[in-house]
Amino acid sequence: MTTTLPGILTEVDEFVQPVIRAHLDRIDERTRRVAGYQLGYWDVEGNPTVRGGGKGLRPALALLSARAAGRDARDGLTGAAAVELVHNFSLLHDDVIDGDRERRHRPTAWAAFGIGPAILAGDALLGLAADLLSESPRGNAAWASRCLSAAIRRLIAGQAADIAFETRAEVTLDECLTMARDKTAALLSCSATLGAILCGAPEELTLGLALYGDRLGLAFQLTDDLLGIWGEPAVTGKPVLADLRERKKSVPVVRALTAGGPASEKLRDLYAAPGDLSDTDLATAAALIEETGARDWTTKEADRLLTEALAELDRLTGPGGAAGPELTDVHGELVAVAHFITGRDH
Amino acid sequence: MTTTLPGILTEVDEFVQPVIRAHLDRIDERTRRVAGYQLGYWDVEGNPTVRGGGKGLRPALALLSARAAGRDARDGLTGAAAVELVHNFSLLHDDVIDGDRERRHRPTAWAAFGIGPAILAGDALLGLAADLLSESPRGNAAWASRCLSAAIRRLIAGQAADIAFETRAEVTLDECLTMARDKTAALLSCSATLGAILCGAPEELTLGLALYGDRLGLAFQLTDDLLGIWGEPAVTGKPVLADLRERKKSVPVVRALTAGGPASEKLRDLYAAPGDLSDTDLATAAALIEETGARDWTTKEADRLLTEALAELDRLTGPGGAAGPELTDVHGELVAVAHFITGRDH
Repeated sequence: MTTTLPGILTEVDEFVQPVIRAHLDRIDERTRRVAGYQLGYWDVEGNPTVRGGGKGLRPALALLSARAAGRDARDGLTGAAAVELVHNFSLLHDDVIDGDRERRHRPTAWAAFGIGPAILAGDALLGLAADLLSESPRGNAAWASRCLSAAIRRLIAGQAADIAFETRAEVTLDECLTMARDKTAALLSCSATLGAILCGAPEELTLGLALYGDRLGLAFQLTDDLLGIWGEPAVTGKPVLADLRERKKSVPVVRALTAGGPASEKLRDLYAAPGDLSDTDLATAAALIEETGARDWTTKEADRLLTEALAELDRLTGPGGAAGPELTDVHGELVAVAHFITGRDH
Repeated sequence: MTTTLPGILTEVDEFVQPVIRAHLDRIDERTRRVAGYQLGYWDVEGNPTVRGGGKGLRPALALLSARAAGRDARDGLTGAAAVELVHNFSLLHDDVIDGDRERRHRPTAWAAFGIGPAILAGDALLGLAADLLSESPRGNAAWASRCLSAAIRRLIAGQAADIAFETRAEVTLDECLTMARDKTAALLSCSATLGAILCGAPEELTLGLALYGDRLGLAFQLTDDLLGIWGEPAVTGKPVLADLRERKKSVPVVRALTAGGPASEKLRDLYAAPGDLSDTDLATAAALIEETGARDWTTKEADRLLTEALAELDRLTGPGGAAGPELTDVHGELVAVAHFITGRDH
């Protein structure tokens, strides 16, 4: 696996960020300040930062999907800007909901500006995302709008399930995987198709890209779940063992809780104990999860999903595949993004 | 003034609520439960309630505006459902932001279900509102979308200003009135035009209705501000003196703070004092506001704005007015809604 930055990410900086910045001007000054902080444009005081936001993987996928449809990456620009806005809307609200104080090596927006301003900034970004597509003159913009709306609803469903699981004793692995798919794969899958949809690509191509995005998205979430337990804070930008501290029922945790056997039982007791978990408890919990084989299983599952995502791309470009020569060109970049997304800490 | 329920409100129950309920089915079950509670469809346990939601004034205005354009009220249905969803989205988030635990004589959604589920339910309703208009086959749906988006951005701006004012020592009356207009009048004005816009009404008519809605909306907010200090909890459904307890800089408060004189000074000291305000402090604050003449001024200002709103309707129906005979028919109902909105506790 490679951790080289795929070239498309520079196109996100060059083309997508200016579109988002221009649209940000529609928002009132107070809310814009919070939104721009979240997007990494400036610091708490409003001073410009050197590219402090996310990596722009979702808009990168949207641009590539336009290129996969045989068009210029910029033909997917509206979709790319919209998915980046939706992603940041969800981060703003999720950090409030989860009480997370740190993201990308900085205080989260609510920790820096307060809960109210962070909620409102999320609302504003969600509104802007919808505006971008509804104002697009492209013939397929209405369909793109529907796809994005459906992804947003799944994102909300996933986050709602995530919250509900925290206080529920029994969560099946299937329920947990559905939650992870809704929370993460839905928007990634939408991103990987939105540019193609805006370009009027044939349905087989957009469906293939949607499958690629779905598998990749779940692989991404599993990788993120692993990093939430065993990731280096210096790399993840989040406190160590944060997910376990919040008693998150992430995929490795639920796999471990439902594995059976002594380690699984001990983990269950630890998660059910009242009061805060101590640092020793957290380290024990991580060791128990590993002991059940859940770390190994989740790693292999992420690898398997990545392989499936790449196989989907191959199917599209192979004999009888839906893609023309355009997808062959862009194939390598979609592979690079897939490796990048799932290989951050490998 | 009358407090008789305008007839249009029964049409909201009959036509608009079923559209909202049908669209609610798109949301995941957990989030739908919170959203339906907010909308007054069921109680905390999910049992159907007897019409526990708001009165539906915004959707009523949207239906009437379709009728004002010479069409059936139901031609404004999509707009009516959208503004009711946006209104409830904002209530869900505002109650979290303000920490309000009671609304409409029930626990607020976050108090009943938790902060996370309430934020997500708001997000879902905002998404549904955008969907309703973007999926509408009507020719002017795109314009209606833009009007609603602009109103949502002003709503966010108003709420952001409201939060900022709480911790700011000096707020001018102008800033405060702009905040009130953004927070309340923008959506009301949008509601009063959305049905007409969807019906392709001439611009003079929609502009006239927008002005009517703007004046009415600000009158509504001023009335609400008065009730937030002197309203009976049994009528308002909110705790007594709630606005003063949160040190809200509502219009009567800012009018009093900027009035000058001994009562104004004393109020300023009280608002600037550290720690929670006692019940005695709150009663003193209310008395001081009254002493500055701010209660009287706000009441008269609300009356003046109501008169302006009604004059706008008269202008539309008068000689050379933009309205055809259709508006003459619906004129009485728009007047009744205006009286109802501003006369709740008179």
